[in-house]
Amino acid sequence: MQSTETLLSLYEQKFGNNNFSLNPSGLYEPVKHIMSMKGKKIRPLLLMMSSDLFGGNVEQALNPAFAMELFHNFTLVHDDIMDNADIRRGIPTVHKLFGINTGILAGDVMLAYAYKYLIDIPVQTIPEVLRIFNKTAIEIFEGQQMDMDFEKREDVSETEYLKMIEYKTSVLLACSLQIGALLAGANNANQKKIYDFGINLGLAFQIKDDYLDTFGESEKVGKRIGGDILQNKKTYLLISALHKAKGKQLNELRALLQHENEEEKIAGVKNLFNALGVKVDTEKRMDELYATARESLQSVDVKAEQKARLLKLAQDVHRRDF
Amino acid sequence: MQSTETLLSLYEQKFGNNNFSLNPSGLYEPVKHIMSMKGKKIRPLLLMMSSDLFGGNVEQALNPAFAMELFHNFTLVHDDIMDNADIRRGIPTVHKLFGINTGILAGDVMLAYAYKYLIDIPVQTIPEVLRIFNKTAIEIFEGQQMDMDFEKREDVSETEYLKMIEYKTSVLLACSLQIGALLAGANNANQKKIYDFGINLGLAFQIKDDYLDTFGESEKVGKRIGGDILQNKKTYLLISALHKAKGKQLNELRALLQHENEEEKIAGVKNLFNALGVKVDTEKRMDELYATARESLQSVDVKAEQKARLLKLAQDVHRRDF
Repeated sequence: MQSTETLLSLYEQKFGNNNFSLNPSGLYEPVKHIMSMKGKKIRPLLLMMSSDLFGGNVEQALNPAFAMELFHNFTLVHDDIMDNADIRRGIPTVHKLFGINTGILAGDVMLAYAYKYLIDIPVQTIPEVLRIFNKTAIEIFEGQQMDMDFEKREDVSETEYLKMIEYKTSVLLACSLQIGALLAGANNANQKKIYDFGINLGLAFQIKDDYLDTFGESEKVGKRIGGDILQNKKTYLLISALHKAKGKQLNELRALLQHENEEEKIAGVKNLFNALGVKVDTEKRMDELYATARESLQSVDVKAEQKARLLKLAQDVHRRDF
Repeated sequence: MQSTETLLSLYEQKFGNNNFSLNPSGLYEPVKHIMSMKGKKIRPLLLMMSSDLFGGNVEQALNPAFAMELFHNFTLVHDDIMDNADIRRGIPTVHKLFGINTGILAGDVMLAYAYKYLIDIPVQTIPEVLRIFNKTAIEIFEGQQMDMDFEKREDVSETEYLKMIEYKTSVLLACSLQIGALLAGANNANQKKIYDFGINLGLAFQIKDDYLDTFGESEKVGKRIGGDILQNKKTYLLISALHKAKGKQLNELRALLQHENEEEKIAGVKNLFNALGVKVDTEKRMDELYATARESLQSVDVKAEQKARLLKLAQDVHRRDF
């Protein structure tokens, strides 16, 4: 079993200098820009860890690992256009620097390169890997559409919200894990278990994101606390609150959504989240999701000590305060 | 050998009602909108004809044929955003009807579906089909970038222009033909020949487009003649003229590019194209490309009578005045 550092260094050795210095430069400069941003490389790592978990050849997992990172970054480029986001990880977004047209086209070419790297694997594994990846890609686009639709709706249910974040976030983590398993020759039952681990880990991860945006500490999270509240963003917290609040509390919540003073709005909504039990409920939900993820992983049919690293990763996601 | 009508009807039978009535409807309504527009289905037809040419099972060619149409329409959706085009085939473009964000995302999901249908073929053919298709997709994005770059440049050479239209238009026709051949079990030499046929046919097709926009008849072409001239569009004609014109004629051409009166501008530029021999040169160039396309097709190692239909198609492209 290889350490996370070894896996990352194998990955960086192979792709760290792949900076897309290609022509026409107008197309590839934006790709270079986003691919050279520092990131956690969580999807490549999951793919490599999963391959390693099932005794696979990690070298063979490198190309599809890079494909996951390319695909993820492609979605960021297009999502940033749709969300009209100017900054990502402290750096101007692609369309902000290069224009919307270039952002669209650079995203498109990254998607094609993702497919190119994805299929640079042993030939007999290509059809099944592609089937999983195509399904995932379609779900991610559907998730992004749901997200945009929800912003215009008042009556989003928790079930709908969970489906949306499953599609928008979880399925790519789960797909990365499943492809790693498949490449290592894991059977269908084990592929399903590691996929489910990824789904629940992703859900816990996304809800934690919502949670920290409201209940985190500014210095640790690295951004202003309460941003989602100010934007009336349909987070897990707000959706729960809109369902639990009745009568006076519901009126209060609705009034706060229109409230002009930023500090008062953040403090007021946080108070209501506490009063309605939304904070506690959310913590409970994350615990459940984490437990379900752990169970999936524990049921995978390999020696317990081989699961230690993925279990540690799940724990880190669960406990993080940043 | 099956008739064009038979091939089209097989295709329509299978996909005519595939109208993407899926959820979330906000994502799939735009897909439905563009995929239900009437079109010539030239790429699916080329793929099926090529498969048939080499004795393949046309039924097996249907899914990748649909993939080519999906991919082509995806590029139209994204290109229309980049070109800020409001109308296509007399109907509002996707982003005009549904907004730019939806246009971006609907295009993305169409690309994923293109891959999905593309690989719904006999498993042993998947890796090579994907290799060809990925290469083509990347070239098409590079071609679109070149096209955008050229609009800002004065010094585009004929070679650069031909490369751009090869990437933007020809490679998808050639790729469709090659995939059809590959599915039918054609050898590499024949695949290369049918691919080259597609490249030259595509170049002739695109230059004819430029030519008809200036020298066609309005009633036949179905739009106002001279649109490219009014926009100072870098067509084959204008690029040739900018290279051939010297001294007084060059000054005259430059003045016309700034000229305000539309009718005078069109007439003046047309006169110059004639005086410079650009009209005759362009006709010669199309004849050459057509001849090269014919030669590629004639060198394909199957019985002459089987080539009749593709030869007829090339002839139609060459002779068309609409």
